[in-house]
Amino acid sequence: MSSLKNIAIKRLKERGVEIKDIAEIVYKLQYKYFDKLTIEDCIDSVSNVIAKREVINAVLTAIAIDEAVEKNLLDEPINSIIKNDDSLYGIDEILPLSIVNIYGSIAFTNFGYLDKVKYGIIGKLDKLGKEKKQCHTFLDDIVCAIASSAASRLAHKK
Amino acid sequence: MSSLKNIAIKRLKERGVEIKDIAEIVYKLQYKYFDKLTIEDCIDSVSNVIAKREVINAVLTAIAIDEAVEKNLLDEPINSIIKNDDSLYGIDEILPLSIVNIYGSIAFTNFGYLDKVKYGIIGKLDKLGKEKKQCHTFLDDIVCAIASSAASRLAHKK
Amino acid sequence: MSSLKNIAIKRLKERGVEIKDIAEIVYKLQYKYFDKLTIEDCIDSVSNVIAKREVINAVLTAIAIDEAVEKNLLDEPINSIIKNDDSLYGIDEILPLSIVNIYGSIAFTNFGYLDKVKYGIIGKLDKLGKEKKQCHTFLDDIVCAIASSAASRLAHKK
Amino acid sequence: MSSLKNIAIKRLKERGVEIKDIAEIVYKLQYKYFDKLTIEDCIDSVSNVIAKREVINAVLTAIAIDEAVEKNLLDEPINSIIKNDDSLYGIDEILPLSIVNIYGSIAFTNFGYLDKVKYGIIGKLDKLGKEKKQCHTFLDDIVCAIASSAASRLAHKK
Repeated sequence: MSSLKNIAIKRLKERGVEIKDIAEIVYKLQYKYFDKLTIEDCIDSVSNVIAKREVINAVLTAIAIDEAVEKNLLDEPINSIIKNDDSLYGIDEILPLSIVNIYGSIAFTNFGYLDKVKYGIIGKLDKLGKEKKQCHTFLDDIVCAIASSAASRLAHKK
Repeated sequence: MSSLKNIAIKRLKERGVEIKDIAEIVYKLQYKYFDKLTIEDCIDSVSNVIAKREVINAVLTAIAIDEAVEKNLLDEPINSIIKNDDSLYGIDEILPLSIVNIYGSIAFTNFGYLDKVKYGIIGKLDKLGKEKKQCHTFLDDIVCAIASSAASRLAHKK
Repeated sequence: MSSLKNIAIKRLKERGVEIKDIAEIVYKLQYKYFDKLTIEDCIDSVSNVIAKREVINAVLTAIAIDEAVEKNLLDEPINSIIKNDDSLYGIDEILPLSIVNIYGSIAFTNFGYLDKVKYGIIGKLDKLGKEKKQCHTFLDDIVCAIASSAASRLAHKK
Repeated sequence: MSSLKNIAIKRLKERGVEIKDIAEIVYKLQYKYFDKLTIEDCIDSVSNVIAKREVINAVLTAIAIDEAVEKNLLDEPINSIIKNDDSLYGIDEILPLSIVNIYGSIAFTNFGYLDKVKYGIIGKLDKLGKEKKQCHTFLDDIVCAIASSAASRLAHKK
């Protein structure tokens, strides 16, 4: 398991996402509810979320689809539909439910919020995707899900 | 069916929620994606959402629970848990899934967003609940769900 | 927390549901996947599920609604709609998502299965509800959710 | 849109799934609730479900992943995890939520049921996958979702 976790972290890094990037979003979501929340607490919570088997599966699947699309390996028209992240294509927002559902309703509402406000690395991935430099159609939503789940985890621990 | 819809609208009104209040939230969510979106378009979309049997059921159930809690008709400790809208009580965010799920992923992400930013009537219901003047633990989330679904409906029709 | 768990167990008992009843359903779902699964393993898994705050909230809310409906405390027409467990009334199948989602996709698919086959105590609650002796519109689905979640928990631990 | 629907039907056929195969499952689920249900009614309902944009997206995405896995185009270890349809890999049961959610709670519970009993073409796809002749990890669950949604649609129309 621990080795699968390391693979997930390595793959995220290759796609431009560090645990610290996600932790910064968690901090932004949660600091106002705590007397003293540190970025280390947030890194720890993100790390715990990424250790879960369901989360690892979601991360690896999302990145695999994004990369296959980048290399035009999928059939048309679905390769283009995913690459363009069409507003009526909603599968990328469904896949993160495998993460968010586990962490309860706080994770679920934070997910919808982050999907709109696109803090930090989420906005960066979205921008790279829109400029067609890379395909992050699935990954940006997975990062939203990990951040909102790590935030929910902190809220429940309090 | 149409008579059930009228009952739902009447009950919403009795609890302080007019269709126009919800339409204003829809407008705020959607106007930037349209060349010319009118408040009438939004009223029409909200009205269509409230006509659905699942939505009527959710509205009537939510209001029935809130009112029972206001009158202290439920057993303790659940009556107090609902009245205080404890941050670890998440059933009120689950019930709206019966509405939001039907309208796809745009409805689902808008729901999480509205639950945080609490535009217009949503914030008003939340405030009345926190001041313990009324119990709107379930209704405020149902209003979020109707608004986000009506917004998703407009996005899909475009 | 532990005292809330005891209240949930006590309330289930008052409504005719013992932990052992739920454990028997878990056993029926899982014994074929194990070399040696005991009813004690199943009781232990059910007990762990019921310890979760989200599950306690769902149990207490479901029983509170069922009892309020039995005593005709809710407004019409929703009191009768819930009492008759109309096939187009689906809120009782939404509320258990607050339990089932936490335990992943095995819990989710088992839930749908149990809702159809109605093993043991689930069928008994359903029958009492249909005979209008008691209202178990919400409770029978919550029991499905606890059993399927306890089964999923065992599958993940294996 | 209509052309996208035709592409979805063509792709299903190439993977061994005819509309009639799905309609037979719908019939098996629903005939006992109707005085006179024909296989044509079921074909019509399946056809209506497949016309929805969300369903088309889910069908095309699922088949694209299955085929990419068959050709070993995805990175390891995720290519093997999907190919083996590991019992702890649950992403294939999450993706169908994009279909099932739209059709309400009857669709959702039927989905879990079909995932267990694997009627007709669902069992056939599952068997081909287990024998490693083809990869149907995602498609079998999508077929479950279409059948349960078409069944729910008939129940609501009644």
